[in-house]
Amino acid sequence: MSKQRIRRVMDNLEAAGLSQALICDPMSIKYLTGYYTFPHERFFALYLSDKGTTLFCNKLFPDATGFADRLVTFSDTDDPLPLVAAACERGAALGVDKNLPARWLLPLMDLGAAQGFSVASDAVDAARSAKDEEERALMREASRLNDVAMGWLAAQVHEGVTERAIAEGLLGAYRRLGSEGYSFDPIVSFGANAADPHHESDDTAFVPGQTVLFDVGCIWQGYCSDMTRTFFTVEPNAHQLEVYETVRRANEAAAAIVAPGVEFAKIDGVARGIITDAGYGPYFTHRLGHQIGLEVHEPGDVSGNHHEPVRPGQIFSIEPGIYLEGDIGVRIEDLCLVTEDGHEILNHYPHEAIVLQV
Amino acid sequence: MSKQRIRRVMDNLEAAGLSQALICDPMSIKYLTGYYTFPHERFFALYLSDKGTTLFCNKLFPDATGFADRLVTFSDTDDPLPLVAAACERGAALGVDKNLPARWLLPLMDLGAAQGFSVASDAVDAARSAKDEEERALMREASRLNDVAMGWLAAQVHEGVTERAIAEGLLGAYRRLGSEGYSFDPIVSFGANAADPHHESDDTAFVPGQTVLFDVGCIWQGYCSDMTRTFFTVEPNAHQLEVYETVRRANEAAAAIVAPGVEFAKIDGVARGIITDAGYGPYFTHRLGHQIGLEVHEPGDVSGNHHEPVRPGQIFSIEPGIYLEGDIGVRIEDLCLVTEDGHEILNHYPHEAIVLQV
Repeated sequence: MSKQRIRRVMDNLEAAGLSQALICDPMSIKYLTGYYTFPHERFFALYLSDKGTTLFCNKLFPDATGFADRLVTFSDTDDPLPLVAAACERGAALGVDKNLPARWLLPLMDLGAAQGFSVASDAVDAARSAKDEEERALMREASRLNDVAMGWLAAQVHEGVTERAIAEGLLGAYRRLGSEGYSFDPIVSFGANAADPHHESDDTAFVPGQTVLFDVGCIWQGYCSDMTRTFFTVEPNAHQLEVYETVRRANEAAAAIVAPGVEFAKIDGVARGIITDAGYGPYFTHRLGHQIGLEVHEPGDVSGNHHEPVRPGQIFSIEPGIYLEGDIGVRIEDLCLVTEDGHEILNHYPHEAIVLQV
Repeated sequence: MSKQRIRRVMDNLEAAGLSQALICDPMSIKYLTGYYTFPHERFFALYLSDKGTTLFCNKLFPDATGFADRLVTFSDTDDPLPLVAAACERGAALGVDKNLPARWLLPLMDLGAAQGFSVASDAVDAARSAKDEEERALMREASRLNDVAMGWLAAQVHEGVTERAIAEGLLGAYRRLGSEGYSFDPIVSFGANAADPHHESDDTAFVPGQTVLFDVGCIWQGYCSDMTRTFFTVEPNAHQLEVYETVRRANEAAAAIVAPGVEFAKIDGVARGIITDAGYGPYFTHRLGHQIGLEVHEPGDVSGNHHEPVRPGQIFSIEPGIYLEGDIGVRIEDLCLVTEDGHEILNHYPHEAIVLQV
């Protein structure tokens, strides 16, 4: 159990006018207690109040002794909700997980577990967003492994190989590096397939001369990496190089302004401005990035709609792209950590246009 | 849109005293409308009442025109919940999906969308449980492909091959059969690994003489299969054969009594009785089976706690097992369809003890 992380969540709850909360997100419970299980349809929750923490676990889960101040266990034939209601302070409002399902929330209401219910996940999400030193070290290592894996990927491109074969082979490459596996299904896109930013790796076979886009990530001790590079396999023509260099400039200019206090929207705006000025604005069709940590997509994106300032410890992707249907798609993505006085890019694989020898 | 399926759900709602419901389970929405998308964190729901169906879709989802009586679309910067509240009848209770998350349920309550809220998923789950003719045909084909795949699996066993290598290779075998892929992560267990019913395929290398357990399933046009077989690789000794034959008799005796009106608990009891009579009762450590269809585990299990009668169209696994730690694990699993006058076993791969030539 991390007393410091729990303290931060309790402070955030208090700032929202709450004295107690019920969290059911398994990753948030892991973050706060160190205990992880995936409960499938079974009840699993952490109750937080100024009297301490209580973990509610089915007896079929791995033993959770010692991960919270109190442990309440129950079996498949018990109803856990009266046990939760008994732990709650009935006279106070209860903050609940944004994803607490109706089949648990409605009975808690019927049991009168609290005086009013409101969504309190922001208190946990804000704590998870600002990574501490231990988390920063794990995120650096996950991205270092991803840099190494990008080198492996570049070496797999040869005539006739399919997107799917490379994508599936990457799992073994990650495992040989000690990673637990993918942080998301890898995207391998040949030629014009890369013009669809959500292309799923398929049986397309590589033809020399096509561009190759890899958007991949692995997990290291629970923490996720995520990086994209786009390679040429013949010398690019002027049009291709212009698209590539525009994306590269957008990536680097956006990263350059990251420091505590700068708005998320402004970082997106810098990248979008460069792409728009080059005439490709309509072809950059998604937000600049997303936060990342225990999950590959965490709340609070890097987009024109997000006007909060970035804070030290936050880690997000910077991933501008230009997608020209039937022609070319280029994306260059790194993870960026906000430091106390600026930023640190966690990926070190080069940005320069590379022509693979295939 | 399937008017017949929607009619059945409306009848079930009415029997529960409800005139309107809000469903957010993507598989249930696919079942009722034919439209499928996985919405991730975005709002997606189907509203049902005697005035017809309304689908609520984010504009980023694939076009949903024509799948429901009405389509309401919104963008990422719109709040969809006032749109839902406007569609609801405020003076009546609203049945909600068991998994409707707090971040949508609490605002709907604050908006006064209905006069009371209750969980109404049973109405949909009961309809999904009783498969219609179209679904039965798809389930038969999914299990036929799984029978073929079991033959492929049996041919992969040779000295030194790892559980993981076979498990990962199965994906290609399924795809060559035209399947969309796994219905769940395949379980490949060598030797005493099979004594853990939840063993995850790992880097264990096969040693001739070990038993081999395969618990695998694929997806055919959205519908899931699930089957287990346990193979020998040398002539079994008397103890091993006794364990195997006990499991086989339990499987076949349980299947033999399946017909409309028979209690789920009784089917479990027949298998458990045979295993208990043979002295292995404490080593059959799980329920006999689970329902299956669009998802590999659907509500309503085959266990001693489930006292409802089975109904025509229900499909569930019959998967008795005996798990002797450090020694041997045997499980034999088929899918069983309840027909109008009895049952039909969807798997045809033999039950007899087979010694693979490795």
